[in-house]
Amino acid sequence: MQRKSTIYDIAAKLNVSVATVSRALNDKPNISAKTKKLVLKTAAEMHYEQNLLAVALKSGRSQNVGVIVPRIDSYFFSTVIKGIEEALNPYHYNVIICQTYRDKNTELTKIEALLNSQVDAIFISTSNDNEAAYERVLEKNVPLIFFDRTTDIETASSVTINDFEGGYQATKHLINSGCKKIAHFSGDQNIPIFRERFLGYRKALDDFAIDYNENLVIKTRSSLEEGKNAVKNLISQNILPDAIFSAIDYAALGAIQELQEGGYKIPEEISVIGFSNEPFTKFMELSITTINQFPLEMGKMAAQIFLEQLDSADAKIIKKVVLNPELILRKTTKEISVIDK
Amino acid sequence: MQRKSTIYDIAAKLNVSVATVSRALNDKPNISAKTKKLVLKTAAEMHYEQNLLAVALKSGRSQNVGVIVPRIDSYFFSTVIKGIEEALNPYHYNVIICQTYRDKNTELTKIEALLNSQVDAIFISTSNDNEAAYERVLEKNVPLIFFDRTTDIETASSVTINDFEGGYQATKHLINSGCKKIAHFSGDQNIPIFRERFLGYRKALDDFAIDYNENLVIKTRSSLEEGKNAVKNLISQNILPDAIFSAIDYAALGAIQELQEGGYKIPEEISVIGFSNEPFTKFMELSITTINQFPLEMGKMAAQIFLEQLDSADAKIIKKVVLNPELILRKTTKEISVIDK
Repeated sequence: MQRKSTIYDIAAKLNVSVATVSRALNDKPNISAKTKKLVLKTAAEMHYEQNLLAVALKSGRSQNVGVIVPRIDSYFFSTVIKGIEEALNPYHYNVIICQTYRDKNTELTKIEALLNSQVDAIFISTSNDNEAAYERVLEKNVPLIFFDRTTDIETASSVTINDFEGGYQATKHLINSGCKKIAHFSGDQNIPIFRERFLGYRKALDDFAIDYNENLVIKTRSSLEEGKNAVKNLISQNILPDAIFSAIDYAALGAIQELQEGGYKIPEEISVIGFSNEPFTKFMELSITTINQFPLEMGKMAAQIFLEQLDSADAKIIKKVVLNPELILRKTTKEISVIDK
Repeated sequence: MQRKSTIYDIAAKLNVSVATVSRALNDKPNISAKTKKLVLKTAAEMHYEQNLLAVALKSGRSQNVGVIVPRIDSYFFSTVIKGIEEALNPYHYNVIICQTYRDKNTELTKIEALLNSQVDAIFISTSNDNEAAYERVLEKNVPLIFFDRTTDIETASSVTINDFEGGYQATKHLINSGCKKIAHFSGDQNIPIFRERFLGYRKALDDFAIDYNENLVIKTRSSLEEGKNAVKNLISQNILPDAIFSAIDYAALGAIQELQEGGYKIPEEISVIGFSNEPFTKFMELSITTINQFPLEMGKMAAQIFLEQLDSADAKIIKKVVLNPELILRKTTKEISVIDK
């Protein structure tokens, strides 16, 4: 049987003192954040096992963190969660997940339940305005990190993507590939991420001197059906566009199915771009051009902010990280004949 | 402002005594399970709000239940969880979710974390053998309900589907539609659900007097890549079949993509059936024939077993529910010319 690793082994490997290793493992002061991280990483690599219960009792920490998302059955959210877990695993944090179905009261209940469970941090993607509850979490000194869908609270950290830029990139690509009449399936404009995508769309139209036509903007929710209905809507108004930028992948797929049933050629007659890079956008025979939101990186970054806050208990670090999205070109858009400027 | 509902309103509406309503809401004895459920349902409909914290303090319950799954980024598991939440919402239970990535130690950690959080029940889909931990949960009188992937412990309740029957139905359908050389992509045979699907496949071959050929059985994991490789494998051996029954939807899709790249016609030359009814199987232009495992019903059923156990604290009810799967016919299989027997 293999001998278990001890703190002596870790000290020897890193050429530091046993006291240093102990300080790192037991979360004591007088050690640099850099050294501490190195020790924890090495301990994880050497499969060093602390008595976790003893650690929790000593430190007053549960080693549990909570993640609250609107829904888990989405590639985006489940991948952010995976990113958080991957980043926190070496530090023996246990992630528990709650979903709100976007309901404001459910979100409140989940926050309370996590606080009652003594979690060490809460990661949340909100579509509600439970500001009072968020403030309460922060007052309790429980780190609260927002991702994707954030709040206006100044003192809360967040990791978001630049949705405006995503909307801009998508629309600009359609224009550069020769499209002139570009519809937008917009999502709920009360939710900031969708408002930003819409504003990016508008800005691109402006920059390329294309008139904005509000009849071409249709509010859709995340379903195939709503994408289909939006296309029917445009056809019935006799204003079928030469391109659709959908802020939602599912609505983009619904649009594509409806257009194909109507005999329209994609992308020759109509180009389509989605948003989120849901796995099916890649799987389809006619794979769908979409926007990568880097969910794994988002989760890792959110976890990193939490770890930094732990390192500096006195001076709480507030970070607002904004990731840049990336356009993924696939088969539902035309190639660009002129150079992308 | 609307007046809040009181227990007097509930009693009046149901024509029962206030004492009865109180017994139901506070989980006291001397009330039938039927009446109790009716009261709780009516209370929920009338938006009656108890002081939950007071209830928890009185009853020693946290009103939290935990769900442990291998991964959340699967239609099947996220839908089971939705079923559990829908069934428990009227009873003010709060669901917290953990994923194990199928790792045995991670599963142990999650069970401990949930017990430490004082959950009132644990729902688990396991692919590990943490029997000692399961026994510990049961000894603590915390209801433990298995779903999909279960254990051999006699005293644990479970809701599963008849995977054998699913494998049998899929294979029988292929035979009835004229296929004679049927490959099987089998999944990890150490996991009971995959072993059962394989046994169903074998039984159907036997029943229709088709010789079993072990070269046609290829172990695949849940990825497109493994499905593609399995097809390459068959081609390289020069034993391309006229049908594939894949125990995994993702491997089925990979196989279809590889076959299409090779110029094979589906279903004319080769039929393909998957398993699980992942959303993409429906979305594809060439929609994929697959097996419905009724995940929403499975979740609701599991929640129901928990509620029944609550109702009868003295005589603990053990239930082993087995759901029957359903074959969903789509475009990757041929129509049956003879009558299905």
